[in-house]
Amino acid sequence: MREENYAAVLHGPYDVRVQKWPLPKISDNDVLVKIECVGICGSDVKLYTTGCCGMDVFTEPYVMGHEGAGIVVKVGAKVDSLKVGDRVAIEPTQPCRSCDLCKRGKYNLCVKPHYCSSLGAPGNLCRYYKHVADFCHKMPDNLTMEEGAAVQPLAIAIHACNRANITLGSKLLILGAGPIGILSAMTAKAMGASKIIMTDVVQSRLDIAMELGADYTLLTKKEDIDEETVEKIIEILGERPEISMDACGYGAAQRVALLATRTAGVVLVVGIGEPKVELPLSQAMLREVDVKGSFRIMNTYPAAISAVASGAIPLKKFITHHFPLAKTKEALDLAKTGSAMKIIIHVQE
Amino acid sequence: MREENYAAVLHGPYDVRVQKWPLPKISDNDVLVKIECVGICGSDVKLYTTGCCGMDVFTEPYVMGHEGAGIVVKVGAKVDSLKVGDRVAIEPTQPCRSCDLCKRGKYNLCVKPHYCSSLGAPGNLCRYYKHVADFCHKMPDNLTMEEGAAVQPLAIAIHACNRANITLGSKLLILGAGPIGILSAMTAKAMGASKIIMTDVVQSRLDIAMELGADYTLLTKKEDIDEETVEKIIEILGERPEISMDACGYGAAQRVALLATRTAGVVLVVGIGEPKVELPLSQAMLREVDVKGSFRIMNTYPAAISAVASGAIPLKKFITHHFPLAKTKEALDLAKTGSAMKIIIHVQE
Amino acid sequence: MREENYAAVLHGPYDVRVQKWPLPKISDNDVLVKIECVGICGSDVKLYTTGCCGMDVFTEPYVMGHEGAGIVVKVGAKVDSLKVGDRVAIEPTQPCRSCDLCKRGKYNLCVKPHYCSSLGAPGNLCRYYKHVADFCHKMPDNLTMEEGAAVQPLAIAIHACNRANITLGSKLLILGAGPIGILSAMTAKAMGASKIIMTDVVQSRLDIAMELGADYTLLTKKEDIDEETVEKIIEILGERPEISMDACGYGAAQRVALLATRTAGVVLVVGIGEPKVELPLSQAMLREVDVKGSFRIMNTYPAAISAVASGAIPLKKFITHHFPLAKTKEALDLAKTGSAMKIIIHVQE
Amino acid sequence: MREENYAAVLHGPYDVRVQKWPLPKISDNDVLVKIECVGICGSDVKLYTTGCCGMDVFTEPYVMGHEGAGIVVKVGAKVDSLKVGDRVAIEPTQPCRSCDLCKRGKYNLCVKPHYCSSLGAPGNLCRYYKHVADFCHKMPDNLTMEEGAAVQPLAIAIHACNRANITLGSKLLILGAGPIGILSAMTAKAMGASKIIMTDVVQSRLDIAMELGADYTLLTKKEDIDEETVEKIIEILGERPEISMDACGYGAAQRVALLATRTAGVVLVVGIGEPKVELPLSQAMLREVDVKGSFRIMNTYPAAISAVASGAIPLKKFITHHFPLAKTKEALDLAKTGSAMKIIIHVQE
Repeated sequence: MREENYAAVLHGPYDVRVQKWPLPKISDNDVLVKIECVGICGSDVKLYTTGCCGMDVFTEPYVMGHEGAGIVVKVGAKVDSLKVGDRVAIEPTQPCRSCDLCKRGKYNLCVKPHYCSSLGAPGNLCRYYKHVADFCHKMPDNLTMEEGAAVQPLAIAIHACNRANITLGSKLLILGAGPIGILSAMTAKAMGASKIIMTDVVQSRLDIAMELGADYTLLTKKEDIDEETVEKIIEILGERPEISMDACGYGAAQRVALLATRTAGVVLVVGIGEPKVELPLSQAMLREVDVKGSFRIMNTYPAAISAVASGAIPLKKFITHHFPLAKTKEALDLAKTGSAMKIIIHVQE
Repeated sequence: MREENYAAVLHGPYDVRVQKWPLPKISDNDVLVKIECVGICGSDVKLYTTGCCGMDVFTEPYVMGHEGAGIVVKVGAKVDSLKVGDRVAIEPTQPCRSCDLCKRGKYNLCVKPHYCSSLGAPGNLCRYYKHVADFCHKMPDNLTMEEGAAVQPLAIAIHACNRANITLGSKLLILGAGPIGILSAMTAKAMGASKIIMTDVVQSRLDIAMELGADYTLLTKKEDIDEETVEKIIEILGERPEISMDACGYGAAQRVALLATRTAGVVLVVGIGEPKVELPLSQAMLREVDVKGSFRIMNTYPAAISAVASGAIPLKKFITHHFPLAKTKEALDLAKTGSAMKIIIHVQE
Repeated sequence: MREENYAAVLHGPYDVRVQKWPLPKISDNDVLVKIECVGICGSDVKLYTTGCCGMDVFTEPYVMGHEGAGIVVKVGAKVDSLKVGDRVAIEPTQPCRSCDLCKRGKYNLCVKPHYCSSLGAPGNLCRYYKHVADFCHKMPDNLTMEEGAAVQPLAIAIHACNRANITLGSKLLILGAGPIGILSAMTAKAMGASKIIMTDVVQSRLDIAMELGADYTLLTKKEDIDEETVEKIIEILGERPEISMDACGYGAAQRVALLATRTAGVVLVVGIGEPKVELPLSQAMLREVDVKGSFRIMNTYPAAISAVASGAIPLKKFITHHFPLAKTKEALDLAKTGSAMKIIIHVQE
Repeated sequence: MREENYAAVLHGPYDVRVQKWPLPKISDNDVLVKIECVGICGSDVKLYTTGCCGMDVFTEPYVMGHEGAGIVVKVGAKVDSLKVGDRVAIEPTQPCRSCDLCKRGKYNLCVKPHYCSSLGAPGNLCRYYKHVADFCHKMPDNLTMEEGAAVQPLAIAIHACNRANITLGSKLLILGAGPIGILSAMTAKAMGASKIIMTDVVQSRLDIAMELGADYTLLTKKEDIDEETVEKIIEILGERPEISMDACGYGAAQRVALLATRTAGVVLVVGIGEPKVELPLSQAMLREVDVKGSFRIMNTYPAAISAVASGAIPLKKFITHHFPLAKTKEALDLAKTGSAMKIIIHVQE
């Protein structure tokens, strides 16, 4: 491990620099991973353009990236689950393991997690990265490194679909055809969903959606009237959806979801939405439509890897663009346009 | 059965008359019940004062009452679950049994139910009333008739508590100390809840709450600031509630519930709320707080009867006032003031 | 409806006769179905060869068949869910709808059901058959009548898979590669199962299994030692199965399932097994492996029809043989050999 | 902390010695607890009389005890959940936190746990004991130290009752009136169970059961015929139990449970049973009676402490005998007779 480390470091809004970076030292439960591929996500774009994400405000340069895959090059003294040479997909959290939520298996809701590329936890858009071993998931030979990186957003979509109780024969409405909406459609199909309608305000996203899992699409506009959108959805689908997923975070999407979903169904909100929204909540409550959120990843990496390996989810189709590490800025600028589905940075030369 | 039938019939707002009424004829699956006791509920008051309830608008005189108990005096040809002389608590619905929701056991959400004292289904505030036999639940000897009547709102509270996942050691916030809030507290205690805080805008209701199940109370005002109410609740309870129940239907209650409930907890909305409310939904979704409604009664009469019979729920304490059938109008006028917890009409002389 | 009715009537062991039969009269909630296709099942063979099934002992000639599909030719006065000309798959039960289990949605466990071709309920291997309308499920145009008949065993397999908690990424062991084992494998794949190993004592069944959903197979013999079978399964699968399904009913299969299944997994027993079996139950209990049965069909016809219509389950591949009604005896004789996967009787000429 | 440590050390069958023992050194995540009370459990008796327990065979002297409570006297550098002086009940496991089962919240099934007083993990029947901080649960002031010790078996019973889906109105059969059977009855009552029948082969245990939660009892004998026992149970209870708990581990109890439990109910096996038992499993499977095990403790200490603190479970009544540390041998000899419900060792002078 004489090699030098390089990383994509954010110094401020729009100021990302690929530069030398200290080689991390591993603890007994860690592994050192030679990163091969890292995906770019919407939150990376937010960090890149604003220098903050959620409640995190960064005051020092930090390494970006949280969708990584690579090869184990060093293992800590107490690690027996991995060995040098193993190809791994990196689940980007390191939860505390001792809060009540961790103990109950809901480590995605850990009260003091270390999450890649957030305050106190460097990202993995770099050549060498250390991570706690049990959150590095061994990949079978038939998964490529770029698929390994894209397992991260897939694992988010699987957690959302688990929370939404999707099962064989489910009829779905997915509001928002961005990466998480699309991956949720792909996951839902792999779980046996029989009909999926997706909505978005951008037609090109809906076109991709049709290729990757949606059965029907509906182009919406900001000025649409909620009740009319609901009527169109029911007409196209031929019935009310049993499950509606808000994968865009807009108030209008949540309103449509509450109104459209079938009695005793589920409205699932994935990701971060508007702070306050005027909602017809009572309309859903009276019909016992459950409204649930889905946050990050909870024990879904193994299923994600299995589903890609078995062919149940054709994740390769989801990956649309490639850049070398040196062109990270160009990759982020493209991501910012919203026209790419999944961009992969190839870290090694 | 030579006796004449008398019923409390609503002819229009504030115009309730106790008058002769045809004796009902039973079908093969019905029983005829000599009604003993009928409870008065908030929706009765709404009917009494407005002549309508929910989407029901009544155009003809109809019999009030849906919280009834009595004695079987006649059984249909195909009934083998009951016999003449059985004392029964009447579950006030007669679902279609053939829609998808009925078949899945969610008959409370039936698409075309007959519910006592709503359009197309007469109420049971009368001397003789017919009902389908399997929704007449046999009572053990140690239940009084007035308890039998009060089993109806208790069964609603139990369904709400079931939906809210209350279990041993749960810490609860209940917003609204009306009959359903109070019965939910009593039920939650019987399910093992360890700490319950209740809020209301009326101190006298909170005083009753303290006698019947609440461990702490908080008097709120309409002009309170949500975030401050949340802080007070957490301070009094010593921690965030795992479960919050909105038993009043106000937007402010729903906002407080969404903000106060612990990560991975449940917000349960029971009953009918405001059509549109501005809500910090995202705040709850990110913490995977599930928001669920609870509608009417789903398979909880047997548990309600068992819990009262075993002493787990001291339902008698919940009953505060008594009137004869002839004084139905007086009973409704008292109910309208909101100062009575549960009023029972004694139907037979 | 001037046409005469013909039916396959069992008069005693091996004595099945296609003969004239009275045209059924429908009640208000019934439809009359012109049957097109009926599948032959293992329980039909049992009836054919012994004259009894389970605790049913038949003393009079009765019509066979419970896997039927056809066209509605008459609707009862109260039926609004179907109309003449609708193509329907017939769910072969008519539960009581008023016992506690029916009300809780578990109508497959109804205490007094009428199940096609059991005591008190004629089968549908006939030209005209009446059935309660809401258990006749409308089929989309792209389902064939023979698929409609085969929806019945598929709905059994889906109920079993639901009970077994199969989900995306599940690893399964299925013991027994008969029709239900095979359909469970097809269903599990459609639900996202990533690896399935199937066992049987007949190699030709395993060959079919490999074509229809299994990833691996293991030929077993009656004299095999349980612990050795478990070791082979784990070696082939590369890990312990999370879920094991006993689809054959042999004690040895149940023993292997209890020993092989992963900690916190599920052993699912579908169908009827030996009355008493020596079992290492404690071994599974200590590891919190849940042992569950699955009986008949509970609300899974809609999902079955959707899954075939959407292509998620290629049910056509499961159908292997065809006979006209007149050759019912030949069909049953073939079924008896165990060499056919699914035989369809074409009822109309 | 100049004080010397003393511990009850087992050197071989029946050879327990209270002797000096090294003071443990704490790590960053540990606390040092001055132990006050330790309960004696059936597995302690097994260790005492045989020198082994389960698959553990001890080759060196080791400290006994796993039901401990005491006062924190030292906290590790990274501990912020506890401080010196806190009174704590010690959950006797220290799971690996990184296996798949730990991550899913099922740490009771951890593949490599350290469990007090088993191989590799000393017990806490000593004056000073170290433990990982987050498995030391802070007790409210109104819990006594002896109750704190008895929280351990209560937490086992609560986990069993959780697994058994006990809820308001449940009717239960508990087979075996030993400590876990009794505590399960107390827990079930606190969860709202309405009727409990308990069986045992010793009348005196049934007498205690009647005082602590059982509504009915049945004295059984080894030579009883299963079907007759089932009939008696149903007659006494007035109906079939929805849930049956095997709290004794005998094959006969498991057979009776499988036969007696109501359709769609649960048979719960707690603790270790016979390796192989002849069982009428099919009889339960056909009726969809789920058979589940319950192993140790999974996230139930907080509920146990809350339930005792709120008075929902009168744990004090469960404690019957007291000994000083110096009389540990006498305490074990008494425990061996089976005549004591819960013996507490008072460790400090």
